Amino acid sequence: MAKQITPRSENYSQWYNDIVKKAGLADNSAVRGCMVIKPLGFGIWENMKAQLDTMFKETGHVNAYFPLFIPKSFLSKEAEHVEGFAKECAVITHHRLMNNPNGTGVVVDPSAKLEEELIVRPTSETIIWNTYKDWIQSYRDLPLLINQWANVVRWEMRTRPFLRTTEFLWQEGHTAHATSEEALEESKLIHELYARFAEDYMAMPVIKGAKTANERFAGAVETFTIEALMQDGKALQAGTSHFLGQNFAKAFDVTYADKNNKIEHVWASSWGVSTRLVGGLIMTHSDDEGLVIPPKLAPTQVVIIPIPKPSEEIMKVAEGITEKLLQLGIRVKIDRDDQKRPGFKFAQYEMEGVPIRLGIGKRDLEKNVVEIARRDTKEKKSIDIEGIEKYIKDLLDEIQQNLFSRAKKYRDDHISVAENMDQLTQLLEEKGGFVKALWDGTTETELAVKDKTKATIRCIDDENSLGTGIDVLSGKPASKTVLYAKSY
Amino acid sequence: MAKQITPRSENYSQWYNDIVKKAGLADNSAVRGCMVIKPLGFGIWENMKAQLDTMFKETGHVNAYFPLFIPKSFLSKEAEHVEGFAKECAVITHHRLMNNPNGTGVVVDPSAKLEEELIVRPTSETIIWNTYKDWIQSYRDLPLLINQWANVVRWEMRTRPFLRTTEFLWQEGHTAHATSEEALEESKLIHELYARFAEDYMAMPVIKGAKTANERFAGAVETFTIEALMQDGKALQAGTSHFLGQNFAKAFDVTYADKNNKIEHVWASSWGVSTRLVGGLIMTHSDDEGLVIPPKLAPTQVVIIPIPKPSEEIMKVAEGITEKLLQLGIRVKIDRDDQKRPGFKFAQYEMEGVPIRLGIGKRDLEKNVVEIARRDTKEKKSIDIEGIEKYIKDLLDEIQQNLFSRAKKYRDDHISVAENMDQLTQLLEEKGGFVKALWDGTTETELAVKDKTKATIRCIDDENSLGTGIDVLSGKPASKTVLYAKSY
Repeated sequence: MAKQITPRSENYSQWYNDIVKKAGLADNSAVRGCMVIKPLGFGIWENMKAQLDTMFKETGHVNAYFPLFIPKSFLSKEAEHVEGFAKECAVITHHRLMNNPNGTGVVVDPSAKLEEELIVRPTSETIIWNTYKDWIQSYRDLPLLINQWANVVRWEMRTRPFLRTTEFLWQEGHTAHATSEEALEESKLIHELYARFAEDYMAMPVIKGAKTANERFAGAVETFTIEALMQDGKALQAGTSHFLGQNFAKAFDVTYADKNNKIEHVWASSWGVSTRLVGGLIMTHSDDEGLVIPPKLAPTQVVIIPIPKPSEEIMKVAEGITEKLLQLGIRVKIDRDDQKRPGFKFAQYEMEGVPIRLGIGKRDLEKNVVEIARRDTKEKKSIDIEGIEKYIKDLLDEIQQNLFSRAKKYRDDHISVAENMDQLTQLLEEKGGFVKALWDGTTETELAVKDKTKATIRCIDDENSLGTGIDVLSGKPASKTVLYAKSY
Repeated sequence: MAKQITPRSENYSQWYNDIVKKAGLADNSAVRGCMVIKPLGFGIWENMKAQLDTMFKETGHVNAYFPLFIPKSFLSKEAEHVEGFAKECAVITHHRLMNNPNGTGVVVDPSAKLEEELIVRPTSETIIWNTYKDWIQSYRDLPLLINQWANVVRWEMRTRPFLRTTEFLWQEGHTAHATSEEALEESKLIHELYARFAEDYMAMPVIKGAKTANERFAGAVETFTIEALMQDGKALQAGTSHFLGQNFAKAFDVTYADKNNKIEHVWASSWGVSTRLVGGLIMTHSDDEGLVIPPKLAPTQVVIIPIPKPSEEIMKVAEGITEKLLQLGIRVKIDRDDQKRPGFKFAQYEMEGVPIRLGIGKRDLEKNVVEIARRDTKEKKSIDIEGIEKYIKDLLDEIQQNLFSRAKKYRDDHISVAENMDQLTQLLEEKGGFVKALWDGTTETELAVKDKTKATIRCIDDENSLGTGIDVLSGKPASKTVLYAKSY
């Protein structure tokens, strides 16, 4: 188990694929573009899900579940939505297979054709707003703050595990409000919540901003995004929250009676993050030895390895430490395998990104110490067994903090400012990362820059404005500060 | 909000539909046979899921995720599986919609036809065993103890919310083992786990037994079931665990090298419970006033209602109690609505099955008491505010216990023994419930009884054997004790 992974410097894309495969995060499947999420990858997603779910509930949201299938005709209702978006999808045309009359195996039963084709949801705005029509009559029914955890399908041409797959897992919030202000407020609240989750749990620094009209979700009035930076200098859109105005309410005729019994269309938001976050986590922290997982999301936070083999005495110590760590709510396991060598195990847990490794050997026990290795810095230390649980608890916090600082330093080092097109092109080409520039606000300029540089406007960053001046490309007056980057 | 629900005695089936609708558990959707699970219904499922997930993990299982789609050809591989089972399904033939060239709306793009049709998983044995082929080489890779939480689709003709829907949510465990004994042991362990969950959490007594060959899962060597009894005397199959032998391993050629390097096919189990359990919970406990939820699974265990309207003093007491209950891990909410009358609210929470209702009025406060009403018996009592959290905690346990006892008494009162066909017919017709009888072990007799009585053999109950004798129908020697019942 020597070097198994292509170094980042050699081929970043291959490095990513190697980590996904060798750490056991996901596998390709027999179905084009669909992945199998293996227990380690799924364990990370489960921890993300649990934390996000808690945060949604703390802010007043409840979960519900809507059908997997959407009648084809629903897609004609919000014209912009379907134009921009929902056409590459899985279409169900029949509901039965039959034995092949000409041989073995099964074929589609032609007599079981559906009257109206169904599509597998690429997102659920349409079916949900069709349902909300029955749920909302009066201002008393508002706000409706509903989230759904679900699988969705978008027929992608080029797929990569976690980052872009035909089927993926996500959550989608769909809220209904009496006023425009409230719906906008909701989409901003979730935008903040996503940023907090990314930074405090994934240890992944993000830039918060609004999307340009061209990059907005189809059917949205405003799209807010969190953008992270991967170690190859490319941006990753990590979560979006949309203010939908009354577009879907009008398409599905969802109205409410206000306090004066006046009938109004409802205002909406929607927002989602997906298993793509697992890809973001991998690419933010991992190194040439394998996966690195922030402690808060690690399925196993501490692994204890008896050296060289489990003896009764060593196991007793290992179990004592385990007991104490469990009491502190730390996810710990003992490696009880007695076939593999310690060196092999060390490399394996390094590959799998376990934040802390404890080695317990006979000579350690004579000194009442164990060897602690941290995954992020690869430092090793001998630590007294007495009080070790406190040491480990603090160390987990320190690792979490260190991963964030390290990622933030990298990210901050890769934000530049371009004052003209030459600078923009050169910075994107040579340095990568986010390049800040003034933009004249037109889609025309945005697309022209994309054409020249392959970079897109990741977001409008009003919080860190460059003031006013001229657009780097068009030379027209510009007052919007935007971040350009190449992206996933 | 007077009587809104059809009484059970009048029309049991309508009573069920009324509860589902009026308690806000689920809604019909625009897609045939698919339901929308509303927040209350989904909250119950979430609690079931959390508990089952804990129990699976305690017994060494991990979660993973496999694709939604299955290539059509996979279904030809395990002949018995597809014959018995998997043909009524959603078939995906295309991957794109396009604007209708003849008018508005969208149509299927004929140029986007799939080379091989996909079906939406009705269950995942085939795709999972196709994956296990890559994961299993040696005895060191075994056992593989994997569970998946997922949605599945079976194209049902007659659907009822929760009990039978085209799309439903479930978990499916798929384990791989080195020996027949281990795989059989696993399927029995889960059988026990399901029974424990049903009784200890759902407060739903179940009978554990094996299915007859005719009622087995297609592709299984042995199917174990837990069978519950609904209040109309019909049985509900609430969970099944299958010993699959080497059938799927052979179909997908999954082998392993044992310690002597001998190549063997792997042994398998699979097991699942679904959102059908929510239907079982409703029908086991609810009454003519509405839903009754066992406290352990109730999304809200205690609701506090200020009477008549929230005053500052009353709210302070309500919040004080809430604080103490939350500290004990009790799920409590305060009804802060100041528009609806208390009587309306009482009826509403009765309908929604909240186990304990606290009313706090001005006169109560003068006496330092609050009024506690329990949903199961509808008893009301004045209880001192001092120490009320302990009282409520105990009462939740008592309600949980009472619901189980009540359901068990009903179930036990509806198990009869038939010594001949006349008795069997009469008991099934007049009394309902489970009727125990001796069976000669042939599918022929089983189907003949079904034909005459509409009852099926729910399970073989060897634990409570009637010994040996003659079959009630055929008169042939019989040594199997079975439970007949009409069922959902």
